[in-house]
Amino acid sequence: MTRDPRYDILFEPVRIGPVIARNRFYQVPHCTGIGWTQPETLARLRGIKAEGGWAVVATEETEIHPTGDCEPFHEGRLWDDRDIPALALMADAVHEYGSLAAIEIMHHGASCANWGTRLAPIAPSHRPIIYGYPVQARAMDKQDIRNLRQWHRDAAIRSKKAGFDIVYVYATHDLSIAQQFLERRKNDRIDEYGGSLENRARLLRELIEDTKDAVGDRCAVAVRFAADELIGKAGLTHDGEARDVVEMLAELPDLWDINLSTWSNDSQTSRFAKEGFQEEYTRFVKQVTSKPVVGVGRFTSPDTMVSQVRRGVLDFIGAARPSIADPFLPKKIEEGRIDEIRECIGCNMCVSSDYTSTNLRCTQNPTMGEEWRRGWHPEIIAPKKSEGSVLVVGAGPAGLEAALAAARRGYEVHLAEATSELGGRVTRESRLPGLSEWARVRDWRVTQLERMENVSIYRDSELEAEHVLEFGARHVAIATGSTWRKDGVGRDSGFPLPGLDGPSVFTPDDLMAGRDPEQGPVIIWDDDHYYLGGVLAELCRYAGHETIIVTPAAMVSAWTVNTLEALPIAKRMARMGVEVVPYTSVVGFDGTKVQLVSGLTGAASELPCASLVSVTARLPTDGLYMGLELVRDRWEDSGITSVTRIGDCWAPSAIQQAVYTGHKWARELDEAPTLLVPRELPAIEAGRVKATW
Amino acid sequence: MTRDPRYDILFEPVRIGPVIARNRFYQVPHCTGIGWTQPETLARLRGIKAEGGWAVVATEETEIHPTGDCEPFHEGRLWDDRDIPALALMADAVHEYGSLAAIEIMHHGASCANWGTRLAPIAPSHRPIIYGYPVQARAMDKQDIRNLRQWHRDAAIRSKKAGFDIVYVYATHDLSIAQQFLERRKNDRIDEYGGSLENRARLLRELIEDTKDAVGDRCAVAVRFAADELIGKAGLTHDGEARDVVEMLAELPDLWDINLSTWSNDSQTSRFAKEGFQEEYTRFVKQVTSKPVVGVGRFTSPDTMVSQVRRGVLDFIGAARPSIADPFLPKKIEEGRIDEIRECIGCNMCVSSDYTSTNLRCTQNPTMGEEWRRGWHPEIIAPKKSEGSVLVVGAGPAGLEAALAAARRGYEVHLAEATSELGGRVTRESRLPGLSEWARVRDWRVTQLERMENVSIYRDSELEAEHVLEFGARHVAIATGSTWRKDGVGRDSGFPLPGLDGPSVFTPDDLMAGRDPEQGPVIIWDDDHYYLGGVLAELCRYAGHETIIVTPAAMVSAWTVNTLEALPIAKRMARMGVEVVPYTSVVGFDGTKVQLVSGLTGAASELPCASLVSVTARLPTDGLYMGLELVRDRWEDSGITSVTRIGDCWAPSAIQQAVYTGHKWARELDEAPTLLVPRELPAIEAGRVKATW
Repeated sequence: MTRDPRYDILFEPVRIGPVIARNRFYQVPHCTGIGWTQPETLARLRGIKAEGGWAVVATEETEIHPTGDCEPFHEGRLWDDRDIPALALMADAVHEYGSLAAIEIMHHGASCANWGTRLAPIAPSHRPIIYGYPVQARAMDKQDIRNLRQWHRDAAIRSKKAGFDIVYVYATHDLSIAQQFLERRKNDRIDEYGGSLENRARLLRELIEDTKDAVGDRCAVAVRFAADELIGKAGLTHDGEARDVVEMLAELPDLWDINLSTWSNDSQTSRFAKEGFQEEYTRFVKQVTSKPVVGVGRFTSPDTMVSQVRRGVLDFIGAARPSIADPFLPKKIEEGRIDEIRECIGCNMCVSSDYTSTNLRCTQNPTMGEEWRRGWHPEIIAPKKSEGSVLVVGAGPAGLEAALAAARRGYEVHLAEATSELGGRVTRESRLPGLSEWARVRDWRVTQLERMENVSIYRDSELEAEHVLEFGARHVAIATGSTWRKDGVGRDSGFPLPGLDGPSVFTPDDLMAGRDPEQGPVIIWDDDHYYLGGVLAELCRYAGHETIIVTPAAMVSAWTVNTLEALPIAKRMARMGVEVVPYTSVVGFDGTKVQLVSGLTGAASELPCASLVSVTARLPTDGLYMGLELVRDRWEDSGITSVTRIGDCWAPSAIQQAVYTGHKWARELDEAPTLLVPRELPAIEAGRVKATW
Repeated sequence: MTRDPRYDILFEPVRIGPVIARNRFYQVPHCTGIGWTQPETLARLRGIKAEGGWAVVATEETEIHPTGDCEPFHEGRLWDDRDIPALALMADAVHEYGSLAAIEIMHHGASCANWGTRLAPIAPSHRPIIYGYPVQARAMDKQDIRNLRQWHRDAAIRSKKAGFDIVYVYATHDLSIAQQFLERRKNDRIDEYGGSLENRARLLRELIEDTKDAVGDRCAVAVRFAADELIGKAGLTHDGEARDVVEMLAELPDLWDINLSTWSNDSQTSRFAKEGFQEEYTRFVKQVTSKPVVGVGRFTSPDTMVSQVRRGVLDFIGAARPSIADPFLPKKIEEGRIDEIRECIGCNMCVSSDYTSTNLRCTQNPTMGEEWRRGWHPEIIAPKKSEGSVLVVGAGPAGLEAALAAARRGYEVHLAEATSELGGRVTRESRLPGLSEWARVRDWRVTQLERMENVSIYRDSELEAEHVLEFGARHVAIATGSTWRKDGVGRDSGFPLPGLDGPSVFTPDDLMAGRDPEQGPVIIWDDDHYYLGGVLAELCRYAGHETIIVTPAAMVSAWTVNTLEALPIAKRMARMGVEVVPYTSVVGFDGTKVQLVSGLTGAASELPCASLVSVTARLPTDGLYMGLELVRDRWEDSGITSVTRIGDCWAPSAIQQAVYTGHKWARELDEAPTLLVPRELPAIEAGRVKATW
């Protein structure tokens, strides 16, 4: 296919100081949960982005000194020369595909506890660190500022040694000391680094100048900057001090990388913000500088991208999440394969990886984080190693991905879906308030599947064991999903709760099937702690019901702290008038009242309740699998080599896990089992081991 | 000194199956935040425990398979042969001092998300995993159970290869699959592994038998078991099913290691439980088995220990926290140095290390976690490298530790304290409700200091810069602590709040100085999030005031999730009638009402308030230091080589950090600076790096 000429503008080379980016696609710095802990894993991950056409591929934030140590988060480290080899590995991997490697060197200042190094954090003024650790940052004196500048300069030089082409000065997300100096609320210095904005911007200016001086001959110097903190005049605003700073330093760096602070404002989920949501805050930048500008906004549509460039909003299309969901997004636009773009759904499962210090994962892209240890490539998959067809039963996220990945391997694929619509839980959940973009999990796969000649899709085809035997596929994947329990069993109670078998009790499946509570008050018993309880509360509020969430946790949707949504969800509940009753267990329901027990005092109480929505746990819908287990002796005669449960039918989990298990199943068909998945382990002096083995 | 004969019983050797422990001191398995990630660090830490006299030194929980992966927590791993060298390092380090090395192999079952390996967790029945991850464990079939047994057997054999002497079967803390099979609320199987207690105990029995069969010739097999879950009949109880299980399997293992489940019940802080608190639950075990029994209870008193043994409660004095606070506790009893025991204060700062996946730390023992990277030994410190005296100003935790460590190096030490009492914040805080044991931080140091001939202590000696110059010490440590801000500046507001300069506003310092609110309602503005806001609420409630905690966080004392106290504190607040107003900011005070703003809706409101207690942030009390800075040109003539701030005067933090910085200061006196602290880094194939450096 050939590219539509209207996208040509996206493939113009753009100069950034002394270097040239081959196109306008720019993977801005983003966390991975990997950082310094797994150099090979990270290098492969970033290298594939370059292969996919991102002209610039950046690291995550990379600490320059042990006084800015954000352990237990896994970010980059460039504390000293010992860290160069790991980062060089990444830079080399990016260069291999002709892209520029960027590094976001930075100091956390008052945003981390140095919990690992046990050194005192530093900041413009004495302040507790931004997270709740019992640690304060100390006010820096002039020597401290000189030291910081030296560390930054040293890190820039090490970055150059490691092979990087673009070196950052970082001043956003409230995670960087340069930003903290800018913030009136954190800087009450009375010297030339405090007071006027010019004074508060002095450190930022010096860091830019230092970096240019140190490495500017060969490396571009970028500034990553907060256009707005969304806290009004207590912070930087796009029509106030943030703009003033950009005006003040407009021509100093080689590139402006502009976004919103904090991270939770920058990486809002699709439940709270749509593509291009940052434009109103960031568009001023190009008006005040001649330097190239990169910005983000979860861009996945090439037309939006072109519009950003043509309207003079941005020079580079920055992306973190879209580059995770589809590392080959630029290449697909370049080659005119627009409808192959796997669009980010904005669920922030990727962010949860960083928050839990585990390898990056993505709902849309099952290969993310698996590039090194499993050798998975997002666009390449080994051809099948046998003839014979494949039957996938169930077209939810696991089944769709399994079918697609198997089809890409060349298998003859049959996909049977019991209902008239494809997508399973993704389709059902995408109809809930705020989750419409999640349908992209379905849409991308269905689009790909429908154009493949080796794929047959059967709707309205509920299969029983006999049908599967008759079908005679070599490999069978059972992707029949799961159902929400109606008995109250979950985390809080392992035993069924009395009264939950009554007619006014609803599961999420009921509500998603359109069986709405007719009467309020509605009580949502949320023992699940991810998004669904809160989303269903929205649904019930929109239906006009008085709605109360009862949860044993301290807050609603507690796990969403990992997706940056916990506070936005709590705000939305409060603003919609959904009451949240924390630290409380539902222990029974009589049709008009729920019985409660306080998790704090043990006291019993009741609440009026006309409809109870029970969100506790799920059971795999594994009847078909169990039926096939019973006739295992007939598999061979039917030509069946394997029957495997995938997705929620194997173990109910998040959608990303369903996609992942579907993909993994297809990757492993007819392959020798992987006995030992590679792991990156700490180096040990082998000579020290004296044990007997 | 010689040992008091009444402690002789603690030094009897005790047989455990095929091995013999040289005494009754037993470091039970405990987490370190280190686990598989830093083998050298961990080996040195454990080795020092052996050196200190613990006859048995165990690992933390050590995973046997990728389906039981508790990432991001740093525990042990023995997934395959690649993990043997790291564990052998630890076993060797323990053997070097004649102790037995124990390993707690285990499978997490439904207690972890396998967030790293992305495999489905396994469990007796379908259940969400115990933490809030959006992941369920799947019900195991018979083949899964056979697999699990094989993994456990393989891990036992690998443990033996690595050199371990005692191999565990783990069934407590609700973290182990063997316990989950026992729990009625998590096991609704209808086969021979479910139903009757005998059936539910089948897996535990099989794992014990398998382990004995696999390695019992040379290794003892221990069972770590929950005597009670403290949830009544929904769980295992010491007078119910837990007892029945021990009776059932009484003679099967070589040793019973008994405790309370979950971890938060097992490792209660001194705020909630005192030495020996587990006895009422665990004492039955010795009555039903002839095998040796080890139990815990934060034992630090040798008389309590002897009593436990003589009364037939325990055979071994188990310890986790006391062995962290003083790795040489056994040796000190053995050598008749009872008053040198550095007793655990029960603050659970150690637990926070595991919760934050960072190296173990201890309020009492500043060398903990620093054994390898800084080469610190808890009992050995390098002799001084110069003559000349040392002046420490301030006798809080930093000053006391600095003085003691410097004195142990041989310096002539002068310790000047402005008030009449030693201990600083530790003394003040130890008078607050529940914190009395924290005075041990002071008492141990004062006891040691007072017997040293090279130490002079001056009470009621507030020093000014001129005094320090006159004193003419070679090294001066300024440990003058910090004071709580009264202006409201903290995390929530970087700007002073209106009205906080009024007479009815109290800081924690005011309350600790006995300036109690005379009138309620009292509002505690807790923007600190560690223990103090809650403790002061207790104080005000005991004084009879209506007391309300207002906090911008979602819960009271939010950071104490890391010390296992968040729920106990919330319970205590509820039971004492302290109201908690979460998600809310104090924005002003007019003497009768506080002005509030909701963090969720932005709505303004007011609460009646006669006394406002502001717990936001601290400022270093650094006037003396600043005064000395002004006369820096006179230091040399006064004989002063260095003046250094330590503890809260350097950067306000937790008490552990004050002790740590005091110790570090003394270690580094007259020593060449450490340019590069050793770090354990992942192994990289150096050949892959192509960069230019």
